[in-house]
Amino acid sequence: MQIIITGGAGFLGQHLSKALLRSDLKFDELVLIDVVQPLNSTGDLRVVCQKKDLSDAGAADSVITAKTGMVFHLAAIVSSHAEKDFDLGWKVNLDITRNLLEACRALGTGIRFIFAGSLAVFGGVLPPTVDERTVTTPHSSYGAQKAIGELLVNDYSRKGFIDGRVFRLPTVCVRPGRPNLAASSFLSSIVREPINGEEAICPVAPDLSVVLSSPDTVIRNFIHGATLDGKAFGEWRTVNFPAIAITVEEMLTSLEKMTDKKTRAKVKFKHDETISRIVTSWPGAMNNALAVKLGFQEDKTFDDFILQYQEYKKQDT
Amino acid sequence: MQIIITGGAGFLGQHLSKALLRSDLKFDELVLIDVVQPLNSTGDLRVVCQKKDLSDAGAADSVITAKTGMVFHLAAIVSSHAEKDFDLGWKVNLDITRNLLEACRALGTGIRFIFAGSLAVFGGVLPPTVDERTVTTPHSSYGAQKAIGELLVNDYSRKGFIDGRVFRLPTVCVRPGRPNLAASSFLSSIVREPINGEEAICPVAPDLSVVLSSPDTVIRNFIHGATLDGKAFGEWRTVNFPAIAITVEEMLTSLEKMTDKKTRAKVKFKHDETISRIVTSWPGAMNNALAVKLGFQEDKTFDDFILQYQEYKKQDT
Repeated sequence: MQIIITGGAGFLGQHLSKALLRSDLKFDELVLIDVVQPLNSTGDLRVVCQKKDLSDAGAADSVITAKTGMVFHLAAIVSSHAEKDFDLGWKVNLDITRNLLEACRALGTGIRFIFAGSLAVFGGVLPPTVDERTVTTPHSSYGAQKAIGELLVNDYSRKGFIDGRVFRLPTVCVRPGRPNLAASSFLSSIVREPINGEEAICPVAPDLSVVLSSPDTVIRNFIHGATLDGKAFGEWRTVNFPAIAITVEEMLTSLEKMTDKKTRAKVKFKHDETISRIVTSWPGAMNNALAVKLGFQEDKTFDDFILQYQEYKKQDT
Repeated sequence: MQIIITGGAGFLGQHLSKALLRSDLKFDELVLIDVVQPLNSTGDLRVVCQKKDLSDAGAADSVITAKTGMVFHLAAIVSSHAEKDFDLGWKVNLDITRNLLEACRALGTGIRFIFAGSLAVFGGVLPPTVDERTVTTPHSSYGAQKAIGELLVNDYSRKGFIDGRVFRLPTVCVRPGRPNLAASSFLSSIVREPINGEEAICPVAPDLSVVLSSPDTVIRNFIHGATLDGKAFGEWRTVNFPAIAITVEEMLTSLEKMTDKKTRAKVKFKHDETISRIVTSWPGAMNNALAVKLGFQEDKTFDDFILQYQEYKKQDT
């Protein structure tokens, strides 16, 4: 059995590939695909790295073949990027998803298709806590594209063309590396940069409540969700990954507790209207009941998020 | 100013064109486009009829030009048809919508874009009454395609590329003419055929509650909604057209009252699993509050629906 990860060069793709290689899941091949060359940092011989643009004609069909059993579709143009480059956002976030689904359907082998959704499908006036029954009125092109992907994956699943599942990700924090073009990127920066001795800019007010999950928990939940029986999801295959609700101020309090005053002081507030508009349209609290019922894991405290990043840094160096 | 109606040969397209020609709305040209040749039954010189497949490359761009001020996008593959022909459904209901939106965006003239949505975006486990804050988990490809169209129209509007609005139609009843491939087609047949002295088959149980609007009310609401200021819709441009909730049994009681016992007796019940599965997944009652607040009109009793059809028949002959 072959597993494919699109966006395989990205942080989550790389993290997921290592976790899959360590897991009990039986497979012969793990294909990492991305527009930039993915790395096989493990040396595991099951890993195949492919540099490929899945929006190219025929690319999805060439990648998904009779041996493909599972696809983790993580490749995406992130929120601020999709907001800036409207055409690219739709091309990658909608067209590639459709191409992959059509390639799966053409095979007719009931490929397990795991779609990385996003809480950005929620937007505007929202109830105090959000769950899977909350209406999706996205206030960003990225959110609209992810909401459309959900509808596609659900319809292809309902028709029996794939065994699909949609997992909506909260903001993943702390992401290692450099800031990216996600509107939520600062939520990692305000922890990561101070720990690395650098200044960070927070573009929103300190009382903004955000919903977060740690990388390890997200990856564990991806694998849990991929190995669940399709019937567990009932008639709608969209689940919000568990998330903790926390204000920016509380994140910084935790940062100070886990480091020191000087580290926290490296975070400066400078309002950014574009980022603020997108991020404040997202949910401030989640009801994790469905995910927990399905056996997905919750993070505990934000202190653990910081510990996880410090641990990651140690392993990486 | 030019107005375009896609699906201009269809019942609603034809009905809408006549109503627009009679209305106070100022325009120089009314273009009816369809894959079958539309008719100009009025003789009004403002009407231009075009037989054109909008899924052909470049077709949308050739139709929407600098003089276009308003587009009523009614063309669609209906529910049972989209369920049977998966490819055609996505091609017409998604790709054509996208092509039209892209053509509007390319002009950058803020074209008013009226998208005929559908209550089929709702599906599965639903609250007792449905409104604009109800989650959309469609249980048909048609519903998924309409839900995706909504997201597109809202995102293009949010970006300022169009002045869009989405009006979700309940089942329109009584449609004159012959049955079509909508799963809801029988809801017109069980009134129309008996009045015309023919038998009709009802494929669902008599206690099924459905939500309906009459053709005249739907057309009046289309024109009202098209002439409202965009700001009236607030941050999300999707409105459910008002609908009455009624059981099949109550429809037949009204039919008997407005005609006679013999006419009602022409309706036979014969369960159809495919139609039943789609129709029972739709809402059984609507909360019309938002639409009413925005000035849209409600139908009163089902007796009026029957009167309206009888009146239509008289005019038609």
